[in-house]
Amino acid sequence: MTLSSDPQAKTSAPIQAYAAPDKSTPLEPHQITRRAVGPHDIQIEILYSGVCHSDVHQARSEWGPSIYPLVPGHEIVGRITEVGQQVSAFKVGDLAGVGVMVDSCQHCDACEGGEEQYCENSFTPTYNGYERGSKEPTHGGYSTQIVVNDKFVVSIPDNLDLKGVAPLLCAGITTYSPLRHWKIGSGHKVAVVGLGGLGHMGIKFARALGAEVTVFTTSQSKVEDAKRLGAHQVVISSDREAMKTVRNAFDFILSTVPTSHDLAPYLKTLRRGGQLVIVGALEPVGLNGGQLVSHRRSVAGSNIGGVAETQEMLNFCAEHNIVADVEMIDMQDINTAYERMLKNDVKYRFVIDMASLKS
Amino acid sequence: MTLSSDPQAKTSAPIQAYAAPDKSTPLEPHQITRRAVGPHDIQIEILYSGVCHSDVHQARSEWGPSIYPLVPGHEIVGRITEVGQQVSAFKVGDLAGVGVMVDSCQHCDACEGGEEQYCENSFTPTYNGYERGSKEPTHGGYSTQIVVNDKFVVSIPDNLDLKGVAPLLCAGITTYSPLRHWKIGSGHKVAVVGLGGLGHMGIKFARALGAEVTVFTTSQSKVEDAKRLGAHQVVISSDREAMKTVRNAFDFILSTVPTSHDLAPYLKTLRRGGQLVIVGALEPVGLNGGQLVSHRRSVAGSNIGGVAETQEMLNFCAEHNIVADVEMIDMQDINTAYERMLKNDVKYRFVIDMASLKS
Repeated sequence: MTLSSDPQAKTSAPIQAYAAPDKSTPLEPHQITRRAVGPHDIQIEILYSGVCHSDVHQARSEWGPSIYPLVPGHEIVGRITEVGQQVSAFKVGDLAGVGVMVDSCQHCDACEGGEEQYCENSFTPTYNGYERGSKEPTHGGYSTQIVVNDKFVVSIPDNLDLKGVAPLLCAGITTYSPLRHWKIGSGHKVAVVGLGGLGHMGIKFARALGAEVTVFTTSQSKVEDAKRLGAHQVVISSDREAMKTVRNAFDFILSTVPTSHDLAPYLKTLRRGGQLVIVGALEPVGLNGGQLVSHRRSVAGSNIGGVAETQEMLNFCAEHNIVADVEMIDMQDINTAYERMLKNDVKYRFVIDMASLKS
Repeated sequence: MTLSSDPQAKTSAPIQAYAAPDKSTPLEPHQITRRAVGPHDIQIEILYSGVCHSDVHQARSEWGPSIYPLVPGHEIVGRITEVGQQVSAFKVGDLAGVGVMVDSCQHCDACEGGEEQYCENSFTPTYNGYERGSKEPTHGGYSTQIVVNDKFVVSIPDNLDLKGVAPLLCAGITTYSPLRHWKIGSGHKVAVVGLGGLGHMGIKFARALGAEVTVFTTSQSKVEDAKRLGAHQVVISSDREAMKTVRNAFDFILSTVPTSHDLAPYLKTLRRGGQLVIVGALEPVGLNGGQLVSHRRSVAGSNIGGVAETQEMLNFCAEHNIVADVEMIDMQDINTAYERMLKNDVKYRFVIDMASLKS
């Protein structure tokens, strides 16, 4: 075990990363620096890094100007190579995961309630942000290493396929958290809108929680796969007659559609008091007040999950043998992977084998 | 007490009503017929009838084609003049009220759960609908009499000013029900958007329930009145600086705006997990998914309230001495009242003294 000799050490080491140097050029290899391992820090050698839709948005500055050079990646699985002096819950050699957050204020109501994702002073994103109280940019998982505050590191159960674990850190927790928050379980009728990285995890979790699961998709070609993933029923959302058969049918709908969409066709399928939760679309969505009023329906949003809840989700996955369905790529294939992802041409998440970055 | 001699009697009597004969002409006096009093029916001599925004929409066929001649009015207070043989909870001479519904299927989950307003087989509206299983149109409160199934009649506490009670049957219950459903009480910060017929009741109820109440209005002229009605704070929603002072401030927002509006400025003022409830706008509203996701906020709708809940609301009003602030009019002034209501020129509800219809 290597401990940092000086807890205040601010020395840093250059490491290899795949970064977008500016928004006009694709990702390419870079030398970036990592901060030294402080007393509460953990250094992880990254084994696998999932590719999230938000990576491409930020690599291309589509969510406002990004901080370049930008190292994307917030679905990180690896092995601990160093721990700070004050770290007691982890040791060198442990498997560890890092998701969308690497820090938060840790003293607001949200943080104290274990919901760091809603930190009132804004959580520190794993990449495209700045280290807390510093002008040092954070860098994500398309890299050989990461150094993270131990409060934002989770343990990876050892019975799961690590490649499929990486996407759990964002796609997994993003769909697990709302299902748990709204107490979905046996006896509930749940629909999942969209069958992509998030949607396929939503199916698995809703099914494992005991719900009766329906998938809404526009693709006839996805019907069989949705059933293989656990759906009891698949409805082609562009088929108006099929949609009529599920009027007022569901207690809960998880919309994983990552872009602006009209909620109207789905709201019609929610029963009295039913809840639709948006986890993908961060933009305007079509909503008619009358559809809510007539059946006391609700539309909410949900953002990833807290650190403790992420650990709970991983333990749930270990118990139910749940991982993401992934397609492995080398780091050098990332630009092609982005293009394919934008066409929904992936079943259901790209995961980068970070060994490819060292070769 | 006059009992109907034959429970199956289908005879009916002509009565005086103020009706819109067709959508191109204003309201004018009409002779319409009321059904005979059946064994479970109650006949009420109407004393006061509130004027709801929905009356003008339907008088003018603005919510799809209305059924003419149309007798609007679903905020009805009067005195019982006849009860059917099977009626035990009411007697001739009692004060009674009728709201937005006069019947429902009474056997679906919603009805059995006391939420007839969400009847899965659609409740029977007090006007602009058809009697259950019949082609006989229902006629509302702009009239001398009404005959209603006893399950849809509520008792009026005798300590309240009857004129101000009429609007409780729609504006009152519409704002009371969501506050109760979402368990608003002491310690909650509540905002009411819009200060009209519904909004002014929302202030009174939220205050009486123990909440800290803020009113959003666009009219500087309404500030003092909002405070008189019970608001602790008034924010001019067009003042961007003022809006910034209430970022993430509220647990619950009641939007009483009766038309399409953008929810964005109000959602920003909801705290983590906060709830905005629409009770007025039955049309498209502006919504951005990101505003929900970032703080796990919800937007829901709520429709009037059930019959038992309406009785509970009236009892609550009796206990807290709550009635609507009203402006009395004669039946003959209805067309002018509609025009003034459309300009928000009423504090805060017109109520028709039905004696004027007999004179």
